[in-house]
Amino acid sequence: MTYKESGVDIEAGDKMVDMIRPLVERTYSPRVMGAYGGFAGMFRLDYSEKLFKRNYKEPVLVACTDGVGTKLMVAFAMNKLDTVGIDLVAMNVNDLICCGAEPLFFLDYLGVGKLEPGKMVEILKGISDGCVMSNNCAILGGETAEMPAFYKPNEFDMAGFAVGVVERTKILDGTHAEAGDVAIALSSSGLHSNGYGLARRVLLEKAGYELNDRPPELAGASVGEEMLKPTRIYVKSALDVLARYKVKRVVKAMAHITGGGLPGNLPRVLPEGLTIRVKRDSWDVPPIFKLIAAKGPVDSIEMMNVFNMGVGFVIVVAPAYAKPVMAQLRKNGEVCWPLGKVKKGGPDLEWA
Amino acid sequence: MTYKESGVDIEAGDKMVDMIRPLVERTYSPRVMGAYGGFAGMFRLDYSEKLFKRNYKEPVLVACTDGVGTKLMVAFAMNKLDTVGIDLVAMNVNDLICCGAEPLFFLDYLGVGKLEPGKMVEILKGISDGCVMSNNCAILGGETAEMPAFYKPNEFDMAGFAVGVVERTKILDGTHAEAGDVAIALSSSGLHSNGYGLARRVLLEKAGYELNDRPPELAGASVGEEMLKPTRIYVKSALDVLARYKVKRVVKAMAHITGGGLPGNLPRVLPEGLTIRVKRDSWDVPPIFKLIAAKGPVDSIEMMNVFNMGVGFVIVVAPAYAKPVMAQLRKNGEVCWPLGKVKKGGPDLEWA
Repeated sequence: MTYKESGVDIEAGDKMVDMIRPLVERTYSPRVMGAYGGFAGMFRLDYSEKLFKRNYKEPVLVACTDGVGTKLMVAFAMNKLDTVGIDLVAMNVNDLICCGAEPLFFLDYLGVGKLEPGKMVEILKGISDGCVMSNNCAILGGETAEMPAFYKPNEFDMAGFAVGVVERTKILDGTHAEAGDVAIALSSSGLHSNGYGLARRVLLEKAGYELNDRPPELAGASVGEEMLKPTRIYVKSALDVLARYKVKRVVKAMAHITGGGLPGNLPRVLPEGLTIRVKRDSWDVPPIFKLIAAKGPVDSIEMMNVFNMGVGFVIVVAPAYAKPVMAQLRKNGEVCWPLGKVKKGGPDLEWA
Repeated sequence: MTYKESGVDIEAGDKMVDMIRPLVERTYSPRVMGAYGGFAGMFRLDYSEKLFKRNYKEPVLVACTDGVGTKLMVAFAMNKLDTVGIDLVAMNVNDLICCGAEPLFFLDYLGVGKLEPGKMVEILKGISDGCVMSNNCAILGGETAEMPAFYKPNEFDMAGFAVGVVERTKILDGTHAEAGDVAIALSSSGLHSNGYGLARRVLLEKAGYELNDRPPELAGASVGEEMLKPTRIYVKSALDVLARYKVKRVVKAMAHITGGGLPGNLPRVLPEGLTIRVKRDSWDVPPIFKLIAAKGPVDSIEMMNVFNMGVGFVIVVAPAYAKPVMAQLRKNGEVCWPLGKVKKGGPDLEWA
């Protein structure tokens, strides 16, 4: 008997490693060391060449891990695998920047039923695109495990892992937030990568939509297109704001709005005794959320607790800087607005 | 409709986060910053307090990711989940130390069919134990994704991510290896976490063993016990050798013997033009490998290409230091022996 007969194709794995190489090396900077394919990826934290000088006095490493959940099921059904990698990177780097860190590198784990090199290239294309969008975060390593006993031939799960760095004195932890600060909302691109258990159940099962259906509520988009839209990556916008306002205490906190929605994520970045009074009518909830609420039906509190409802990221700033920060965000292509104000209270959000 | 009705139990998730907290915090050192449960984990690279002074001049971060593959199927079948976490940590940190890095922190991703807090505590116990065995590598974060659409209720997949640091001038990359150097083998505890596709196929299907069976070849151990033995973690032994011999060029290379066995992993750590002449009779292949070879049957070349065959880790040292290094390894509890010598040739290993 051989290993291949037991269902693991080492040659396919080697072929894949060769095929994805340009997608990985495209994310490299001079800070990446060592050859492609080593035991472990290496990254120079302090790169002291003059042109790249960025020495940290008290570097704090920041790390997080996340997956994209059952959004993958939509990708399988549509046989479109080249964007879920963007979601995977987004879910991680958007978390990293909340403490003021710049993303440095990314690693991915893929558990697959059958290792098909062509499919892996599509998946890696998304991861590579997501890393390029994240201020050239480097793909420092990855693992693809072929496990026919676990995953169906056309299915896979993926996990991402990102590491960033922040100067200790510049960690963004919300401690300087105070009553009167303004919470700026940055629009999401749609569902992002949370709540797909409920979204799929309502849209694809209860309402019975096919992924190709184009209900009038979605204004031209198909259900599948809408559900597969990549998660927006806020790295450049957030870091640009931090880079411009680094001296004064302008930026108080940032929150990535993921599972748990605004009520689950906003209070986490504020100190005890403070909350945010959210103006519900400050934005139009995008059509996909209205469709889910109507077809469930899902009540408005549950909707707000599960989905981002159109707000993908929140930046809390001192009131005098709300306008210039929003102007800068818009230059970076963000749709943003004042979502509400910090006030005494909490821990729950208040609604106006 | 609610999120819970769609199969995702947020309360069970919150309960789990509380329950695993002591297992995570037990791995913390003063270098871990920020509160348990934040968006991202934070770790002080340079901890400048006098007692903990370990400043890096040119820190190079080292990162890797790996899973444990279908060894998990054995754990499910035996309903014993508290050691696969050791395997998960081992697969990552044993890779990290090959370039001379000290492991700093670890993150885990668990994709589960049904989130049962009690089971998660068992899994995290193994991860926590593995991190403590790895010179107190900190569990800096983790993600547990409940995906009933993906995984069977009693099954899960797991991915690990580890980050370490090495001073740039001390990176171990094999470049100083030369003919005459000695390759020291460190014994494995058994299959470790590779080749389970073939091992399960041969032992549980073709040979028809039950996990409770105790074939005489295994000298008392059951098939399941033998297959579930945790992967040995070589961090302390390897770092102790590097700490003692840091000035002279004593330690030339280290290799973690994983998928691909000795032929797939040893040549990777040597420069072009050099290989190792492996003395096949320098060790007794452990019984589990002999049983698989006999029951497959699996020919000896395939066995060597898939399994570690009893050699879990290799340290290549200058010949004059082979004896003292082995004496030090034995003090740390390792079983070790001279596996062979570096010589001109390659890229394939030579056999004697």
